Amino acid sequence: MWDYGDHVIVDCALYRDGKRVEVGTDWRELRAKADADGGFVWIGLHDPSPDEVHEVAEVFGLHPLAVEDAVKAHQRPKLERFDGTIFVILKTLWYVDENDAVETGEIAMFVGGDFVVTVRHGEGNELHSAREALEASQSMLGHGPGGVLYAVLDRVVDEYLDVVDELVVDVDEIETSVFSDDRTNDSARIYVLKRELAEVRRAVLPLRDPLLRLTSRDVPVVPEEATPFFRDVADHLARAAETVDSLDGLLSTAFDAYLAQVSVQQNDDMRKISAGAALVVVPTLIAGVYGMNFRHMPELGWTYGYPYALTLMAVVAAGLWVMFKRSGWL
Amino acid sequence: MWDYGDHVIVDCALYRDGKRVEVGTDWRELRAKADADGGFVWIGLHDPSPDEVHEVAEVFGLHPLAVEDAVKAHQRPKLERFDGTIFVILKTLWYVDENDAVETGEIAMFVGGDFVVTVRHGEGNELHSAREALEASQSMLGHGPGGVLYAVLDRVVDEYLDVVDELVVDVDEIETSVFSDDRTNDSARIYVLKRELAEVRRAVLPLRDPLLRLTSRDVPVVPEEATPFFRDVADHLARAAETVDSLDGLLSTAFDAYLAQVSVQQNDDMRKISAGAALVVVPTLIAGVYGMNFRHMPELGWTYGYPYALTLMAVVAAGLWVMFKRSGWL
Amino acid sequence: MWDYGDHVIVDCALYRDGKRVEVGTDWRELRAKADADGGFVWIGLHDPSPDEVHEVAEVFGLHPLAVEDAVKAHQRPKLERFDGTIFVILKTLWYVDENDAVETGEIAMFVGGDFVVTVRHGEGNELHSAREALEASQSMLGHGPGGVLYAVLDRVVDEYLDVVDELVVDVDEIETSVFSDDRTNDSARIYVLKRELAEVRRAVLPLRDPLLRLTSRDVPVVPEEATPFFRDVADHLARAAETVDSLDGLLSTAFDAYLAQVSVQQNDDMRKISAGAALVVVPTLIAGVYGMNFRHMPELGWTYGYPYALTLMAVVAAGLWVMFKRSGWL
Amino acid sequence: MWDYGDHVIVDCALYRDGKRVEVGTDWRELRAKADADGGFVWIGLHDPSPDEVHEVAEVFGLHPLAVEDAVKAHQRPKLERFDGTIFVILKTLWYVDENDAVETGEIAMFVGGDFVVTVRHGEGNELHSAREALEASQSMLGHGPGGVLYAVLDRVVDEYLDVVDELVVDVDEIETSVFSDDRTNDSARIYVLKRELAEVRRAVLPLRDPLLRLTSRDVPVVPEEATPFFRDVADHLARAAETVDSLDGLLSTAFDAYLAQVSVQQNDDMRKISAGAALVVVPTLIAGVYGMNFRHMPELGWTYGYPYALTLMAVVAAGLWVMFKRSGWL
Amino acid sequence: MWDYGDHVIVDCALYRDGKRVEVGTDWRELRAKADADGGFVWIGLHDPSPDEVHEVAEVFGLHPLAVEDAVKAHQRPKLERFDGTIFVILKTLWYVDENDAVETGEIAMFVGGDFVVTVRHGEGNELHSAREALEASQSMLGHGPGGVLYAVLDRVVDEYLDVVDELVVDVDEIETSVFSDDRTNDSARIYVLKRELAEVRRAVLPLRDPLLRLTSRDVPVVPEEATPFFRDVADHLARAAETVDSLDGLLSTAFDAYLAQVSVQQNDDMRKISAGAALVVVPTLIAGVYGMNFRHMPELGWTYGYPYALTLMAVVAAGLWVMFKRSGWL
Repeated sequence: MWDYGDHVIVDCALYRDGKRVEVGTDWRELRAKADADGGFVWIGLHDPSPDEVHEVAEVFGLHPLAVEDAVKAHQRPKLERFDGTIFVILKTLWYVDENDAVETGEIAMFVGGDFVVTVRHGEGNELHSAREALEASQSMLGHGPGGVLYAVLDRVVDEYLDVVDELVVDVDEIETSVFSDDRTNDSARIYVLKRELAEVRRAVLPLRDPLLRLTSRDVPVVPEEATPFFRDVADHLARAAETVDSLDGLLSTAFDAYLAQVSVQQNDDMRKISAGAALVVVPTLIAGVYGMNFRHMPELGWTYGYPYALTLMAVVAAGLWVMFKRSGWL
Repeated sequence: MWDYGDHVIVDCALYRDGKRVEVGTDWRELRAKADADGGFVWIGLHDPSPDEVHEVAEVFGLHPLAVEDAVKAHQRPKLERFDGTIFVILKTLWYVDENDAVETGEIAMFVGGDFVVTVRHGEGNELHSAREALEASQSMLGHGPGGVLYAVLDRVVDEYLDVVDELVVDVDEIETSVFSDDRTNDSARIYVLKRELAEVRRAVLPLRDPLLRLTSRDVPVVPEEATPFFRDVADHLARAAETVDSLDGLLSTAFDAYLAQVSVQQNDDMRKISAGAALVVVPTLIAGVYGMNFRHMPELGWTYGYPYALTLMAVVAAGLWVMFKRSGWL
Repeated sequence: MWDYGDHVIVDCALYRDGKRVEVGTDWRELRAKADADGGFVWIGLHDPSPDEVHEVAEVFGLHPLAVEDAVKAHQRPKLERFDGTIFVILKTLWYVDENDAVETGEIAMFVGGDFVVTVRHGEGNELHSAREALEASQSMLGHGPGGVLYAVLDRVVDEYLDVVDELVVDVDEIETSVFSDDRTNDSARIYVLKRELAEVRRAVLPLRDPLLRLTSRDVPVVPEEATPFFRDVADHLARAAETVDSLDGLLSTAFDAYLAQVSVQQNDDMRKISAGAALVVVPTLIAGVYGMNFRHMPELGWTYGYPYALTLMAVVAAGLWVMFKRSGWL
Repeated sequence: MWDYGDHVIVDCALYRDGKRVEVGTDWRELRAKADADGGFVWIGLHDPSPDEVHEVAEVFGLHPLAVEDAVKAHQRPKLERFDGTIFVILKTLWYVDENDAVETGEIAMFVGGDFVVTVRHGEGNELHSAREALEASQSMLGHGPGGVLYAVLDRVVDEYLDVVDELVVDVDEIETSVFSDDRTNDSARIYVLKRELAEVRRAVLPLRDPLLRLTSRDVPVVPEEATPFFRDVADHLARAAETVDSLDGLLSTAFDAYLAQVSVQQNDDMRKISAGAALVVVPTLIAGVYGMNFRHMPELGWTYGYPYALTLMAVVAAGLWVMFKRSGWL
Repeated sequence: MWDYGDHVIVDCALYRDGKRVEVGTDWRELRAKADADGGFVWIGLHDPSPDEVHEVAEVFGLHPLAVEDAVKAHQRPKLERFDGTIFVILKTLWYVDENDAVETGEIAMFVGGDFVVTVRHGEGNELHSAREALEASQSMLGHGPGGVLYAVLDRVVDEYLDVVDELVVDVDEIETSVFSDDRTNDSARIYVLKRELAEVRRAVLPLRDPLLRLTSRDVPVVPEEATPFFRDVADHLARAAETVDSLDGLLSTAFDAYLAQVSVQQNDDMRKISAGAALVVVPTLIAGVYGMNFRHMPELGWTYGYPYALTLMAVVAAGLWVMFKRSGWL
């Protein structure tokens, strides 16, 4: 049933003394070696089937509830502790430029004394580069499984910051659009952006508490000298959360400003329309006057009565035009 | 007075060593056996009369205040501890597709060292399937009455998530409706949905604290090795609560967007109306001019004066039409 | 100065072993007996003068600050502890059907080891029925002054729930009114109801903390076995507070919906008016055309020219009518 | 440099055993006596120059940072503890009837074991009456410097309640104005009142924490038996804070109601205008019809054709009038 | 690589016993002396390159994570503790009068037992004056590196208060503009100001927690007798934070008031337009009447029929004018 040729197992290696010692396709064998000589093994799975996860879980002795959460997608970010193992769920975020949308994936991690199992769901946010960066730093790798946990968290949270930076740009664009003189319908864009912010918030906020626990040293597999690193990640997370809150507040204000612009524009339009109407209605009154059938209307007999009437209309209209221009109605 | 033939007692069974040992209609007898040989008995009541509840309460030695709460409907979710017994009230929720409404019921549970009494009020959310699922898992049943408590909580909270998923769909529909070009009156729908969210919140929020206490091990009848399971339920509950909050925020934003759409539409209508009026009023002015009674008006004598005037009107109207079309007023 | 014939002293009795032992008009004598043989005395005052309160205070040794608060109305609900005595201030609420208003009164209680003094200000919320209910329950009365405290709190908080239920009905009515097609001016009603909710909140919220303290056993005169009863009252209070919050949120949403309805209605009216105007203005243009003075206008000479023109006007108006009906403008 | 004849030193007296023992213009001498025989001295300064404050500070050994704060105005209310001395800053508030405005002053207090120095900035809120009230109560004065602290705090917080009561009246007036049928521009008044509420809040909120500390007995110079008095002040402060919050909420609702009234009024006006326009436009159509130049128009030849036309206009206008009246448009 | 001639090293001096002992361009040498004889060295860097920071870090033994944060700009204000060293990041703010904008810079500080390293990014907020002020106060300098930390924090937070004072002025201007009778488009200005407030809040809020820790004595290098000074800074920070919150609330209210003004103005305009239209439309009706072709219309034959008609029009228009003026429509 288990096919090593596919991409379910992305990578699997044994680490000892801060170095990558052995890579293998047979993760059972590597796991046994990790037990024996003090190194640790890191297995990375991508979109595995439930059966595959259960198989791994059995070998590593993972808690059924954690396995259940690792199999099902759409979990909440959290950190659980089962005896000597800790189980972490992370939301991954990335920004898709084509449609200005934030997409989400999920990573589940089992971190024991001598092993790390990472289960990644969805596209994007591959862990390969995190592994490479980690392998490049012997000191970090020397922290063991706790170092892997840090490397993955750092990677994921840095991507939150990238996404948030993109959203800052989007909010700037909306701001420009709201205060431009064009008639733009910004409410839909603001709504969509608020929705994305809510998405980001759902990834960021529940992670605060786990990170706090990682920095407070009540968690196994994290060596005490590594806590500053987790504090650093917690700090980046706090920055992401604050920026998201700030953007949300700005969007609300921008929305109110948009509503105000709509109102002001309606008022401007109304006055413009009224002024335009006056330019037609007043000459119509003049025409009506000279359309009256009184027997004694001297103008009617004038040789230049007709041009006079037309001129009168034009002059009155021009006068109104000037008046409305001056008062800002046109 | 007590009629075993009706549906008041839905089920009543004795469990020992993780297995269903005996089912009986005589719950007094089963209860005595539970006392004697270390198993436990689970009695499920549905819409019982106060007398029936009091009868059961007497046999199991339940606290009068808890019994009072179990008899009266419309209680707040809570967990109370009376000596060795814990008393839990849960709101059950289900979604009725016909009218897109969330309906609520109530479950009261008495969990002692060797018994569980469940009292269910209202339709929907039967506990039968929770019992079946529990009976299928010998390990869970082996946790005793605490296992039953978990099974019921898990069932109820999973139904919260189902309800919340339906509400997500409703919010998506409203979103589509708000941003469609149709003139839809979405405010009533948004109001109703906000009301349902408040309903769900009333079920979900007060349950947080009891679940926290169940995971913190200060509660009797819950064996320590079962706490991860209650943490799992607490986690699902947190997910439900977060989604409800998020939906509520989105609905508020959607409502604002709806208001903006109404304003924009009013502005569009006003400009359309004004443009339409211009198409009539300007030709009326022309007609007024040629209705003047000046003696010397050359056009009046032209053979084709009348067609010329009509053509003039048509041309002017067409010109206005083009102008308004171009500026987006029509 | 002290007149036993008036209604200042509503009731005064000595209780021992859960029974009402003696009633007397001479409360000094009863108080002495309470000291002597282990029972307790409960004196109920209604709208007493400051002098009367001070007289009682002297005999029972009440703290001057508490007495000051008991004399002055418009205090904040609170629980204070002075050595072995506790002092409680409660807001009482009741709903007046005639004008849909919530009215408030006040109860001050001094609860010592062998006495209870209740001072009630304002109409409504008499304590007589609470006393009767208490006297009917020997077990509750057996808790001594703590039992009286429970009985009064239970009574007052249950009345909060009654008031809140009435407000739920009011909110339902407003909801119906907002979404009806009638032109109702709901903003004043919503405002008044919000005001009443604020009133209720001022009674309910500050009581939370005192009740919490009563359930946490750090308060004298409350026997430990009575704490579940105070937890029950705290639970009812929490229900009242949650419902008030929920209603307040619904009213805000209802208000927004009302604003939206006003906007939508304005838009509907504007389009209706425009369509109506078109029915007049277009025939006016036709009349204007046939009022032109061109020499060669064949229609003017037709025998049926006049009926033709009128028919043309009617046909055009009818066409416009149909068009506007179809597009929903009329 | 120091001039005893001016009003910088408002009062200066020595107290012992709850009585005012000696008053003097030479505060240095009084201070020495306080040291010697167990009484305490209270010096009240009003708008002193920095030099004067520093002079006093040197004699009493006050901490430089506290002195700095006492000299500069516009400090935040706070309580600081420097060894055996406590330093308190209070905002004083009073209501100016002429312009319905809340004005603010500041009091800085240094309370040591045997002295009190009060520094008052700004007009209003003199402390003389607080001193008189305190001197009238031997028991309170017997608490020493802590008693002075209580007397000043009690005075200041009672003035908060007075100010808040005036603001309640202002909110009631605004409420009446918003819901009256007059066209009142209430937004400016609401804004100003919100601003005043923010002013009050800035005085009230930061004082909460100091008062809490004064009641929790971790502060020197406050004797334990005096804590109920500080609890009483804290309670009044809480009442002021709650009322301010409640008023702020009501004002927000009143503002929304005002916006709704403006919208409703606009709608009413629009319909009134439209109905008025119809009364003119329809007769104009009739006039237009009889202004047509058809050869065969029987009415034109009628003897009473002209009165008939005028009557027709009047009848149609009257009919429209009745119709609009009935439908509530006029 | 390291060039002492440029402005990277702003200042570098050795302090001992509260005095500036030696200034040098060779910071390595000074650092060695600080180690040897109990004084401390303070090196100030401005916009250093990463390499320069790393060089300093190596000599002083700074933690790599802190160095990383000091190199990268756009960090969050925070206080970290690494063994005996504390690391602080501060946002600096200043107000640019030309464009009414708040600009931000950043200061990173490493404070050890015998050294201080400050790294400043961006223009503005130079630390030179803080150093001068500190050097002028022997007592403060006597607190060692903790005194430097205080001097810098005090300086930075005082500048927050300056910026906040400028924003208070801006809010006052907006207020005046909103309530003036001019048609001002205030929404953009309010938006920009809200944005600046968010900027200030991002600098101020995260600093609260570090300052709290500095006053609670759990931090090395801060001598206990210096905690009142940090409490003073914390107090100023709290004042800045409260003012920012208060301004934000006022701006929201001002925005609502602006929206209300727009609505009221639209209503005023609409009524003005309608009144103006009536002045034209009613005379047009009169002209239409006398343009009718009835054979028997006595006025038509009057000698002064035409002037009569014109007078009638003028009288009716004047009457309407007076009526609209009185009712406030014109």
